[in-house]
Amino acid sequence: MEQENQYEKAIRNFFKGDKYVELSSIEIERVNDAEAVVKAKIGKEHLNANGSVQGGMLYTLADFAFALLGNYLHPYTVTQSGQISYLRPAICDELIATAREIERAGHTSVSDVVITDDNGKTVCVCRFSGFVKEIDKEEVIKKYGEKQ
Amino acid sequence: MEQENQYEKAIRNFFKGDKYVELSSIEIERVNDAEAVVKAKIGKEHLNANGSVQGGMLYTLADFAFALLGNYLHPYTVTQSGQISYLRPAICDELIATAREIERAGHTSVSDVVITDDNGKTVCVCRFSGFVKEIDKEEVIKKYGEKQ
Amino acid sequence: MEQENQYEKAIRNFFKGDKYVELSSIEIERVNDAEAVVKAKIGKEHLNANGSVQGGMLYTLADFAFALLGNYLHPYTVTQSGQISYLRPAICDELIATAREIERAGHTSVSDVVITDDNGKTVCVCRFSGFVKEIDKEEVIKKYGEKQ
Amino acid sequence: MEQENQYEKAIRNFFKGDKYVELSSIEIERVNDAEAVVKAKIGKEHLNANGSVQGGMLYTLADFAFALLGNYLHPYTVTQSGQISYLRPAICDELIATAREIERAGHTSVSDVVITDDNGKTVCVCRFSGFVKEIDKEEVIKKYGEKQ
Repeated sequence: MEQENQYEKAIRNFFKGDKYVELSSIEIERVNDAEAVVKAKIGKEHLNANGSVQGGMLYTLADFAFALLGNYLHPYTVTQSGQISYLRPAICDELIATAREIERAGHTSVSDVVITDDNGKTVCVCRFSGFVKEIDKEEVIKKYGEKQ
Repeated sequence: MEQENQYEKAIRNFFKGDKYVELSSIEIERVNDAEAVVKAKIGKEHLNANGSVQGGMLYTLADFAFALLGNYLHPYTVTQSGQISYLRPAICDELIATAREIERAGHTSVSDVVITDDNGKTVCVCRFSGFVKEIDKEEVIKKYGEKQ
Repeated sequence: MEQENQYEKAIRNFFKGDKYVELSSIEIERVNDAEAVVKAKIGKEHLNANGSVQGGMLYTLADFAFALLGNYLHPYTVTQSGQISYLRPAICDELIATAREIERAGHTSVSDVVITDDNGKTVCVCRFSGFVKEIDKEEVIKKYGEKQ
Repeated sequence: MEQENQYEKAIRNFFKGDKYVELSSIEIERVNDAEAVVKAKIGKEHLNANGSVQGGMLYTLADFAFALLGNYLHPYTVTQSGQISYLRPAICDELIATAREIERAGHTSVSDVVITDDNGKTVCVCRFSGFVKEIDKEEVIKKYGEKQ
């Protein structure tokens, strides 16, 4: 439990170094064995030329949820491929991306990410595949755990 | 030729409204019947926690190349799905995304996007599928052509 | 309830016309609002040169689960794209594919399909996207319902 | 040149063991450093319930073109994921799938496959990703070269 806590802190510290996530105003909501949830308050800087949330912003939100979950479950997980299906234009104040792992087999981890708006409507569905490098969690705690 | 020019201007004006592309410092290099090329000078704000270009930034660059090409070739093209395969970490000063249409059939347009670094190395390969709404180009010129 | 029954019969009759599914010895297990389940007893004719189930056979099984579910839920659903991630070699006597719809939005239906072997191990995970033509179910019953 | 010849023979021998490809009446047209081309004469057994070529058959054709190319270029290449976009119904006497490698980076090989009908119309476009195990070609020749 204590180690779990330390590990979560280390992972959160590690991701403070993600500058594009910072630029995009994306924040961690929570991460645990079951899921990773990240969110963003939508401002004008997130919109496309039609006034809805830009496709790259949606992908970035989903990708970060996957990166957070993958690295929390088994460090380090490097994204190999991502797939996103856009279902509705996102015109809203907040977006939430929830990542859940579908299967881990060998060095491969496959997860789904769903993005919903503040009315609970699904905006897009994504699938990511990552390569797991299998680093010891203690190593991550040593490297990133002290910062907080 | 003249109409072609006016149309290109209108499309460029339309995309000036893309605020996330602006936030990400992505710029149009060129667009014509054969391809759309967009680029970004890489700064610290584009990096992930490992110090290479963040996966969402790479996708956003590719997605914009597709959006530019699709809307140039046949307005309006709405992205339905995107797929990206990451091949190498991008550690470089500039990235270029080149979009080429593979096939148009009915309302569907499928394009490939390749992202290369300033050494010409391929960083990722992407495939996008869009839904073509078939708006008259004159309409786009009327709406966005006067601004420049 | 009665209409539901007639409709399921009609859909099953319709798919009796799928000759490649027949060639591949794939059979319907069940279909309802929650899921479609199809299966295949594995013979030598399904194997690749390494002696595990061939990748095309795995895809065909998954694709049929999606086609069955999509057409059951909202006729006609035409597959627009399919994506399959292979997780483990399938060396087994039977394979089961289970399709569940993730989201329906406008004319688009997105579903997941999971293929498991007779030990319950996940062999591959798939995602399909279809275009829904919105035909009346009564029409399908009229056309295919009498055959049984 | 001589070794190249022996290696091509060995690879062709290896794929004679693919029983699902045999069941599907798919044949090798040619394979070289630039591309792999496979084809199928279409019969009733390849059709879906609507009378056009079944989606699984189309995928199987594409997957085999990728497997042939990948293993020819760098044995062994194990398919990790496949993606197929259907563009038109295939109603024709013959189908041809052409695979070309887009990029090889580390253990990853990414290829495109295009399926065309006997009028040269593109029926579907596919993208495959494989894991390269890096076996020596001499080893493949030893194992499969003598059979012919």
